[in-house]
Amino acid sequence: MVEKCAQSNVRFRPHFKTHQSAGVGLWFRELGVDAITVSSVKMASYFAGHGWNDITIAFIVNPLEIDEINQLARVIKLNLTVDSLHTVSFLDRSIGDTVGVWIKTDTGYGRSGIPAEHSETILEVAEAVDKSGKLALRGFLAHAGHAYDARSKKEVRSIYRETVGKMKGLQVLCRKAGLGDLEISIGDTPTCSIMPKLDGADEVRCGNFVFFDVTQYFLGSCSLSDIAVAVACPVVAAYSDRNQVVVHGGAVHLSKDVVMDPEGQKCYGMVGPIDKMQFGIPYQDTAVRSLSQEHGVIFSTDPEVLSKKPGDLLLVYPIHSCLTVNLMKRLVSTAGDVYSTMSQGNGG
Amino acid sequence: MVEKCAQSNVRFRPHFKTHQSAGVGLWFRELGVDAITVSSVKMASYFAGHGWNDITIAFIVNPLEIDEINQLARVIKLNLTVDSLHTVSFLDRSIGDTVGVWIKTDTGYGRSGIPAEHSETILEVAEAVDKSGKLALRGFLAHAGHAYDARSKKEVRSIYRETVGKMKGLQVLCRKAGLGDLEISIGDTPTCSIMPKLDGADEVRCGNFVFFDVTQYFLGSCSLSDIAVAVACPVVAAYSDRNQVVVHGGAVHLSKDVVMDPEGQKCYGMVGPIDKMQFGIPYQDTAVRSLSQEHGVIFSTDPEVLSKKPGDLLLVYPIHSCLTVNLMKRLVSTAGDVYSTMSQGNGG
Repeated sequence: MVEKCAQSNVRFRPHFKTHQSAGVGLWFRELGVDAITVSSVKMASYFAGHGWNDITIAFIVNPLEIDEINQLARVIKLNLTVDSLHTVSFLDRSIGDTVGVWIKTDTGYGRSGIPAEHSETILEVAEAVDKSGKLALRGFLAHAGHAYDARSKKEVRSIYRETVGKMKGLQVLCRKAGLGDLEISIGDTPTCSIMPKLDGADEVRCGNFVFFDVTQYFLGSCSLSDIAVAVACPVVAAYSDRNQVVVHGGAVHLSKDVVMDPEGQKCYGMVGPIDKMQFGIPYQDTAVRSLSQEHGVIFSTDPEVLSKKPGDLLLVYPIHSCLTVNLMKRLVSTAGDVYSTMSQGNGG
Repeated sequence: MVEKCAQSNVRFRPHFKTHQSAGVGLWFRELGVDAITVSSVKMASYFAGHGWNDITIAFIVNPLEIDEINQLARVIKLNLTVDSLHTVSFLDRSIGDTVGVWIKTDTGYGRSGIPAEHSETILEVAEAVDKSGKLALRGFLAHAGHAYDARSKKEVRSIYRETVGKMKGLQVLCRKAGLGDLEISIGDTPTCSIMPKLDGADEVRCGNFVFFDVTQYFLGSCSLSDIAVAVACPVVAAYSDRNQVVVHGGAVHLSKDVVMDPEGQKCYGMVGPIDKMQFGIPYQDTAVRSLSQEHGVIFSTDPEVLSKKPGDLLLVYPIHSCLTVNLMKRLVSTAGDVYSTMSQGNGG
């Protein structure tokens, strides 16, 4: 991703919400990354405490966190996200030091941000930011989360082009209104992985690609062997007469995120062997089909899976690596190195 | 539940996995409870460290945790759960001090345990436990988790009676085989809440009822005003033109557990007002309809909800209180008392 961004001549500001780990952050720093994205004020404080000086919180400002925001703005180069005059006017009154401000733009996901079509509102918000002495207007920030609903790589590519196209239109509008050359910040792992080049954007913020997961594999963002995180789950029971194995690996370890697999069945995780801390190739026709708090129920027709005994381990590849890492709180590399995460470090 | 168990003449051994909090545990102790259920060895260690001396781990023994199990068995009255000769023989070889042993019995849920119909296998496992010098055979332990799929209170009651009936049959079988009077341990919140009396069981292990949640409400286990845990979520954006409000309250706070509401729509949480730490009555036609890592997207037609501004709070009632408490790690009572939980206490 570092290379793709360099070749595309865009700034790379990876999202750190997937790993939430100072140690994994160093992998990026070693590749020359010095600006990052996070999804909460708490996460910004954690990474600021680990030497990151240029952080964008890609989550709309929560006025109740203004004290923590002001504390951060004193010590690092902080960028915030807004999508209403209400919040801009609040920040103008409440912020102590200068912060960068991005306008959260909705290019079709429908979760948050001003719809790109509401160009008058966007211009109004941009002008309000521009007028404020302490808010430095950066540009438009979008998350094309609807790429996760795409049914083909072609559709993912068209979502990318549509997102950039809409934001280019806003760029032109604001230039005409005398607001200068505003930037375009995008970033979701499906489009950033599938696009051969990241044309049109100024900044890219994807993050999940650091580990990928089963969701990304089904979307075509990665191959199976690209999935770089899994949970080693102890087998506690095997019922080969009904093709079922039960592991200690439940909703409190994996999260209850779920996808429909290509056969149209609910999948809470793919399953593979583990041998001396190495990832084996996931088994065919084998998946976690239900989850309760501590139990994972695997269905399989593979004789190797069904012959597992209590005390054996199976590797479960998560549906959504961000949520699994958040729950597990600690990562161990295949080389045996331990990486603590924010959830572990500060008790929540 | 304490009263219902006393009136039904059954031992109450509440499950502590819902709250995972030493402080909340004291509420039970004050009512005379001195025996508890947990779902992991780690949870057993946590509560043993907080003065609980009689603990059942209602999760099949994981041989990889034998060291922690032996440590616990030295200091408390510990009961374990098995469902195979493999694990019984492992325990017989590996356990240091005497432990109680329950045979996990599957009365129709299909998750784990020996199916009640496989009475020969059950007898074989019971005899193996009975022969072991260090394993004290207690009886049959079942979790009728299929009660969560019931469509009516009538169906819940019939699941209760069927579960107890199957276990009574096993009791008779083992008595005839000279294994004495084995006990019956059951416990899930739907059946225990809906049954007026808990006939036929010797021990009851339900736990979720301490807080209840939206799932239990839809099942008929409780009324709306019985739901005793909720997450106060800050509003960060409101889009009244599309009946949508966005809160900082996502999958890392609420969990991705979901139910279909009576209108057949996905519901990730009900929504109510909060005023000075008091729970308001949940809004009609209002629910969290989608969740990402940090965002909760609420759809509503209620003018009060749609008039919320960034910085206001909304109370989200969780779908599955066990998972939400596990993620939030800390509870604050309406009186302002703070309760830490195991997840907070030991970093995971």
